[in-house]
Amino acid sequence: MSVAFTRMRTGFDSSAMADASWPGCARSLKGVILDLCGVLYDSGEGGGSAISGSVEALKKLKASDLQLRFCTNESQAAREAFVAKLQRLGFDITVPEVFSPAPAAVAALKERGLRPHLLVYDGLLPEFDGVDKADPNCVVIGDAAEKFSYQNLNEAFRVLTGLEKPVLFSLGQGRYYKEMDGLNLDVGVYMKALEYACDVKAEVFGKPSPLFFQSALSDMGLQPQEVLMIGDDLVNDVGGAQRCGIKGVQVRTGKYRPSDERHPTVTADGTADDLAQAVDMILGQRR
Amino acid sequence: MSVAFTRMRTGFDSSAMADASWPGCARSLKGVILDLCGVLYDSGEGGGSAISGSVEALKKLKASDLQLRFCTNESQAAREAFVAKLQRLGFDITVPEVFSPAPAAVAALKERGLRPHLLVYDGLLPEFDGVDKADPNCVVIGDAAEKFSYQNLNEAFRVLTGLEKPVLFSLGQGRYYKEMDGLNLDVGVYMKALEYACDVKAEVFGKPSPLFFQSALSDMGLQPQEVLMIGDDLVNDVGGAQRCGIKGVQVRTGKYRPSDERHPTVTADGTADDLAQAVDMILGQRR
Repeated sequence: MSVAFTRMRTGFDSSAMADASWPGCARSLKGVILDLCGVLYDSGEGGGSAISGSVEALKKLKASDLQLRFCTNESQAAREAFVAKLQRLGFDITVPEVFSPAPAAVAALKERGLRPHLLVYDGLLPEFDGVDKADPNCVVIGDAAEKFSYQNLNEAFRVLTGLEKPVLFSLGQGRYYKEMDGLNLDVGVYMKALEYACDVKAEVFGKPSPLFFQSALSDMGLQPQEVLMIGDDLVNDVGGAQRCGIKGVQVRTGKYRPSDERHPTVTADGTADDLAQAVDMILGQRR
Repeated sequence: MSVAFTRMRTGFDSSAMADASWPGCARSLKGVILDLCGVLYDSGEGGGSAISGSVEALKKLKASDLQLRFCTNESQAAREAFVAKLQRLGFDITVPEVFSPAPAAVAALKERGLRPHLLVYDGLLPEFDGVDKADPNCVVIGDAAEKFSYQNLNEAFRVLTGLEKPVLFSLGQGRYYKEMDGLNLDVGVYMKALEYACDVKAEVFGKPSPLFFQSALSDMGLQPQEVLMIGDDLVNDVGGAQRCGIKGVQVRTGKYRPSDERHPTVTADGTADDLAQAVDMILGQRR
């Protein structure tokens, strides 16, 4: 009894508890996965703007001993273009560090001999340059924004209903994201629309697909429990990571809404006001 | 044993069986509910065109002792306008015989003090003339067709997310309908999109809502088992009617597709090539 008491008094047990929860878990981390939009920057006219403190926070993370990857559901621009945009905003980031849905979908198309009808933003088209698109036998949708006209969605619908076995790939399944003028509908909304119209189930590339998180883990050579995901999307970032055994922290920027903290099925392992605070909490535990 | 045998030989039992199933059930009918688009006419440029034989078939039904009502999910035009269009196509039809979703929704809006943001086709706007639309506290969507732009859907989404308790009314929940140039997405697809975006459940006016069929039954003063529904939409016309105890016959026109005859959950009580054949089968049983 006195031994146990001593242990508690010396903080041995409470330290073990802290290690399992945020931010104590940061002590044993070997890697961090960051979402991009809503964590590093807010998208919008003219390329968007960096979220206050995030350029400096990324610098601090890069200077630490933690490995770092970026998992984004960005599907409006090819990787080269949006990485260049982030560099212009001041972020230290390179293409090989970034995992995005389009390259994962392209690999699946090639492996399965699928020829896509594309309903994507023009900026994403370069990702599909080497893909045969004649006589389509599947449909790929991304965050097409204003290209999600009635006519374009109807065209995708007609391609799907014309196939004996409709195949629909969706680059993410997000509900909405935040631009500087407010919330905007994301690709998942149109995925649900086509799923209902054609009575099919889409195959989702990007978050929260477990395969997507696993490809980032594998690239770092780390186990799930050694890695922390930081995102603004409770379901796709935090919930998706948690389903792979990765801890998930939500930042109160981007598409964060207060009701997320009372979500019926997903509870973040921790929350922080923004990336700057999250990084300070992580690095503070590791000193 | 010999009595039973005699009954079978005289057809007593087989006649009882025939009365319960199509087309034998037509002998005891007192009323018929018809869908409009895909049964009487195919929509399309210039108001569409009558389906072969359907003008004459409607005349025969009207000349019979059967009561007749029309239940349509038409939500592109106000009743006066589309009834006038049907009259120009040669159909004997009047406004009071027609049940459509917008008037049912307007009644619910007024009863509950709801002020709608409308995402509907311009032609439907007259149905909402007497409704307060300032400072909206709900969203109503109809078959808005090309008005379902990204911008308009996003605007409806922003109204819903700005409400403490989002209320979404959908004028029908059809997946698609047939125009002369092919299948087109219907309002249900956009209802599913907004349901997913806002995590709400829409209230559906029109078929297959039981309240909608019941209002037509009540107007005729008939019981469900005295009435037959004829439609081209297996789920909304046939399945919706069946859930109210009304028998449902599917015609192989409009949005009918051969796969409907192998549908996992809805089986029509009967099928006919078109309205003309269905009416001949009904009246043939009643001679």
